[in-house]
Amino acid sequence: MQIFNEPNRADWSEILKRPTQTVKDIEATVVEIFNEIKLKKDVAIKKYTQLFDGVTIENLSVDYAEIEAATNLVEDELKQAIDLAKRNIEAFHSAQKTDPITVETVPGVLCWQEKRPIEKVGLYIPGGSAPLFSTILMLAIPARLAGCNDVVLCTPPDKSGAINPVILYTAALCGITRIFKVGGIQAIGAMTFGTETIPKVYKIFGPGNQFVTVAKQIATKYDVAIDMPAGPSELLIYADETANAGYVAADLLSQAEHGVDSQVILVSTSQTLLDEVQIELKVQLNVLPRKGIVIQAINNSKLIKMLDEKMSLELINSYGPEHFIVCSKNEDFFVENIRNAGSVFVGNFTPESAGDYASGTNHTLPTNGYAKQYSGVNLDSFLKSMTFQKISKLGIKNIGPAVEQMARAEGLQAHVNAMSLRLNDLKDE
Amino acid sequence: MQIFNEPNRADWSEILKRPTQTVKDIEATVVEIFNEIKLKKDVAIKKYTQLFDGVTIENLSVDYAEIEAATNLVEDELKQAIDLAKRNIEAFHSAQKTDPITVETVPGVLCWQEKRPIEKVGLYIPGGSAPLFSTILMLAIPARLAGCNDVVLCTPPDKSGAINPVILYTAALCGITRIFKVGGIQAIGAMTFGTETIPKVYKIFGPGNQFVTVAKQIATKYDVAIDMPAGPSELLIYADETANAGYVAADLLSQAEHGVDSQVILVSTSQTLLDEVQIELKVQLNVLPRKGIVIQAINNSKLIKMLDEKMSLELINSYGPEHFIVCSKNEDFFVENIRNAGSVFVGNFTPESAGDYASGTNHTLPTNGYAKQYSGVNLDSFLKSMTFQKISKLGIKNIGPAVEQMARAEGLQAHVNAMSLRLNDLKDE
Repeated sequence: MQIFNEPNRADWSEILKRPTQTVKDIEATVVEIFNEIKLKKDVAIKKYTQLFDGVTIENLSVDYAEIEAATNLVEDELKQAIDLAKRNIEAFHSAQKTDPITVETVPGVLCWQEKRPIEKVGLYIPGGSAPLFSTILMLAIPARLAGCNDVVLCTPPDKSGAINPVILYTAALCGITRIFKVGGIQAIGAMTFGTETIPKVYKIFGPGNQFVTVAKQIATKYDVAIDMPAGPSELLIYADETANAGYVAADLLSQAEHGVDSQVILVSTSQTLLDEVQIELKVQLNVLPRKGIVIQAINNSKLIKMLDEKMSLELINSYGPEHFIVCSKNEDFFVENIRNAGSVFVGNFTPESAGDYASGTNHTLPTNGYAKQYSGVNLDSFLKSMTFQKISKLGIKNIGPAVEQMARAEGLQAHVNAMSLRLNDLKDE
Repeated sequence: MQIFNEPNRADWSEILKRPTQTVKDIEATVVEIFNEIKLKKDVAIKKYTQLFDGVTIENLSVDYAEIEAATNLVEDELKQAIDLAKRNIEAFHSAQKTDPITVETVPGVLCWQEKRPIEKVGLYIPGGSAPLFSTILMLAIPARLAGCNDVVLCTPPDKSGAINPVILYTAALCGITRIFKVGGIQAIGAMTFGTETIPKVYKIFGPGNQFVTVAKQIATKYDVAIDMPAGPSELLIYADETANAGYVAADLLSQAEHGVDSQVILVSTSQTLLDEVQIELKVQLNVLPRKGIVIQAINNSKLIKMLDEKMSLELINSYGPEHFIVCSKNEDFFVENIRNAGSVFVGNFTPESAGDYASGTNHTLPTNGYAKQYSGVNLDSFLKSMTFQKISKLGIKNIGPAVEQMARAEGLQAHVNAMSLRLNDLKDE
């Protein structure tokens, strides 16, 4: 742990610096693979699946029998847990639906804004040691609620060419049956350009390692949008003497187990709490199966003693954490004044785990300080807002002369003409 | 004009292809200038302003006296026009404010979503032959309504080192007084990295030439967000026999005068209308001051005769126009079913000019087919949505076991522990 005692404001940015990621080398690889996918499509996808995942895939599509078989392999208790999470996520994301906004700005000038679904979206779910089925809930549920027509899912196959049954079960439960056995750079390339089997989409969602992250970034050069730029996951906790040191330590450790580059920060005005948490960390750490990873992340973690709550808040806002837990007697102060955070967890009984899985909020959140300018994934991430206007003859009379004035001042005579022609036709009405 | 008669669906994408932009060469220039700005800050800004704008700027900030002087130089009639536009844009964008959304997903689990302003935003307004003061209204008004703390504006100086008075007047009218005399790549670099004079921002908005477009794209690699990727402006009109051919021609010409690469498309089921519009175009074209530009854009424009409205709509959705004017006896069919368009103008008395300046809708819209996945600029562009959750002891009892199940299935034991610790403390309550 790195311990800081009331650091000077001038040092904050250095203390809170995130590890820099080097993407230069990866960029060249991504461009090379993308170019090959553009030309050779499925053949290229299969080649790189062989190369990176070590498995030959004949049929890139998951077929219905595989999904059905998966359903029988998932235990009932886990199914019930997934069901509960699904209901909560649906409830919270349904509530985000908005009605069209209509304003008659001046008599005869009717303007309205409506949100319509992005028609084709692609969800990426990483493979690796654990099946991240919870992320399917977080992406597929709002995609369905938004009304996206085509929702496809790509996830890498294991060495035997199979997809983890919980992944297949959860996808099907959310109504997604177009699932492809492809991961990494080649999955992002497939959804960017389209192949014989895998469709091109308009927007790609989902987490991934640095290869996937760079591939998504480069995909944006080819007219595809992405949910948000990514970075290692992070948690900042503000805790005062009313916090439970054992809970604080457990929450820090839950963040630390994500990876050696996880960011873990504890800010407090209470030295007692800071001391207690350090003891708790050592005790709880010992029993964790991912201890190796956790120790490395905890070694890089930061415990920061601050003078008061106001300074603490400023420091937190300057960091802009992905996850922010606040356990304070003055929690309202933090809730009201936090300006930069992805998701906020309030009080001793609101661990990050709750939001990661089942409270209802989305766990796809801006990392790397992007909470300063990006939203986490929400219903609107799957919609785009369009504007409409309908102007009557009266409306044109009301705004036409102003439009003529302004277009003339901008030197755009054809814009003036389009208005003058109409105003002229109406001058006797 | 290029004329197509009921083209095969297989040919649509070729017919509707936008001109490709080559950005490779520009990228290297941008990276070089960015690197110099990172190191030398204001010195680099002044150097490139000298090089590209041909003027030596001592003080990059516009001072208050310059703004005051500008106010006296703008004619009253234009001021009144700007006032009317401002009121309408304010009315439409104020209406886009949303209340927090609160849901108790299960008893004791309270989730809410709130939008909070992006604190620091930068607006870019291009220079050139005409002062694009209308874009200031479109960006500064929602920035102010959203509550962004720091709103700065960059715009290039003319050869004498001055900024057009209408730009200064409009900016001040919208409450923006931090204005900097810097344009092009160096303006985007300044707002990306910050200099002694010009602050770093979290998100950059505004149009520009291809140098600005590439600079904005590259800025996103340095933790800055941008409003949207850009491309040449475009208009697609659907008009049937109820449309006024003279108005249709005038609207097409108003789009064509933006630049030689402007995209202008007319789709119709009526051959008579198509013939009439061609005649009108020739007549109206002759009197335009920007005739040289307009002729080139019109030469590349496309007139497409379609079999019926359903096929027309499909073609339009596959193109995803920035601006879409519909003059049809069945306008409701198009309004209800258009899925991909930036802004829609309905009926004979709703020219694009109206929305460009004064109806109240925003004119910063997705081009290049990005209407398929991006919103135009709106109030939300200056906000980010954050989620919050507060869970009671009852709430933890309700969702805790599901969280444990799911975290265990994902192999994340520390996530399980964070929940188990709390559930254990509550087992006798």
